[in-house]
Amino acid sequence: MSSALFGGIEAGGTKFVCVVGSGPDDLGAMERFPTETPEATLPRVIDFFRRQQAEHGELAAIGIGSFGPVDVNPRSPTFGYITSTPKVGWPNTNFLGQLQSAFYMPMGFDTDVNTAALGEWRWGAAQGLDTFLYLTIGTGIGGGGMVNGRLMHGLIHPEVGHMLLRRDPQADPFAGACPYHGDCLEGLASGPALERRWGKRAEGLPADHPAWDLEAQYLALGLVNLIVTISPQRIVLGGGVMQQPQLLPKVRSRVQALLNGYVQSPQITESIDDYIVAPQLGSRAGVLGAIALARQAAGEVL
Amino acid sequence: MSSALFGGIEAGGTKFVCVVGSGPDDLGAMERFPTETPEATLPRVIDFFRRQQAEHGELAAIGIGSFGPVDVNPRSPTFGYITSTPKVGWPNTNFLGQLQSAFYMPMGFDTDVNTAALGEWRWGAAQGLDTFLYLTIGTGIGGGGMVNGRLMHGLIHPEVGHMLLRRDPQADPFAGACPYHGDCLEGLASGPALERRWGKRAEGLPADHPAWDLEAQYLALGLVNLIVTISPQRIVLGGGVMQQPQLLPKVRSRVQALLNGYVQSPQITESIDDYIVAPQLGSRAGVLGAIALARQAAGEVL
Repeated sequence: MSSALFGGIEAGGTKFVCVVGSGPDDLGAMERFPTETPEATLPRVIDFFRRQQAEHGELAAIGIGSFGPVDVNPRSPTFGYITSTPKVGWPNTNFLGQLQSAFYMPMGFDTDVNTAALGEWRWGAAQGLDTFLYLTIGTGIGGGGMVNGRLMHGLIHPEVGHMLLRRDPQADPFAGACPYHGDCLEGLASGPALERRWGKRAEGLPADHPAWDLEAQYLALGLVNLIVTISPQRIVLGGGVMQQPQLLPKVRSRVQALLNGYVQSPQITESIDDYIVAPQLGSRAGVLGAIALARQAAGEVL
Repeated sequence: MSSALFGGIEAGGTKFVCVVGSGPDDLGAMERFPTETPEATLPRVIDFFRRQQAEHGELAAIGIGSFGPVDVNPRSPTFGYITSTPKVGWPNTNFLGQLQSAFYMPMGFDTDVNTAALGEWRWGAAQGLDTFLYLTIGTGIGGGGMVNGRLMHGLIHPEVGHMLLRRDPQADPFAGACPYHGDCLEGLASGPALERRWGKRAEGLPADHPAWDLEAQYLALGLVNLIVTISPQRIVLGGGVMQQPQLLPKVRSRVQALLNGYVQSPQITESIDDYIVAPQLGSRAGVLGAIALARQAAGEVL
């Protein structure tokens, strides 16, 4: 490992991953455990970094990419909190504060998806860009990324999964799985939505199943709306559902068809394979992004 | 007028407005003329500023907010061009270059909507924000704004009007007016779309006409998708269609209804009248934004 060591936490709704290192070439010890209540989970996080420090010496900083919704506004009194999540035990949890009580060092805090986006920007598929999006299509659908060279924050932070899309009830009578909106993007195209519509899990649907054309249609509708608003230089699509290799090419051609020549950029009309891409860091995007967040928190100018 | 004078150009698809001044309190001579071919129109622009300089002395800079699509990437060889517009005579017009050939001074160039957004940010309804949107609902529907304190640019620039929305064909059999997408936001909710659907111009439809609930629904669908992606701190709605006073309250309540409590921010759940607002600069947003662009081009740090 290099001399300066950083801690990274990928805090997902299902599992936590903690790691120590400085980048993709020296990721050291990594520990995974299920996301239980904060009282059960956060002490394991703290214990992991205590052990790492005992073995390797002081960390320079810790980065946290968290499931949400989270408060990512540094000027807010609840900065670093998980706020209104439906996940039992976690609403109004001062995630960052509990870490700060245990360790006196700089810490970075952002959404899980922005953090993965930062990883892809630093070491993966979004290097050199200043405006790009990273979407994860899995248990939920989340989005993050950068605009003007900085991670997207605003009133809150991007959700993306709750975009309201068109659905043809004759072609797709499934009314959607989102408890808030029914047939929003997440309600139509997340892993659980696929499973409820077709009666089996995504990985059990054959590559030529009509599920994949419909899935590509909904994802493409979401991407088109992002393209004509944020105008990203590239879109990275990760998450479990995107593991199906037949899906990404279908999404690309649906995006072109739906835009119908309106956005006259060669990246879209000629090089879409390089415009809508898979993550380069794969499942390590989250923890590597957390390391990159830590490096920023430690004062590194990227 | 103050000592440093700036030129501003609001270049719309229908009319050009040119002005000289330094801000809202000293806007001087203003000249309007119809948008004809570039050969007919740009010499009038140049002539206006020549006369102004003869009278008031050298301008410090000129700002241009242009109809589009335009190339707003300063590293592109066609920076400052109007690119693929359907407007006769204007495709591939080096708008900025022709001005630069006539005047040796700093110039700022952006979309008409980003420029109006900058005006509202500098002197109007978006003061103090770093992430907000400005939409204009008129002959077309356009959007711009800031993310992270800088005007939105990316692969190209935001379009917003071409978002793909849900439409219930039974409630609204009108298939949309957009030549590219049919029933995209602009195809459903622009002034010409209203006119084609209802057979009369927007200003001729009474305030209790069902047109306005439907219009509010489409605008709200678009705003919801912007809220869950860009997470703006405020949305400013301008343009001719928004002149109907009954429309803005309808849009606000439809946004709340469609979000259905998902985005738990008091700005949306409690203060929506201060979250979705009318422009403060009214019809001067465009020219004042062009003055603000000019001030930036002259090196002013805002």
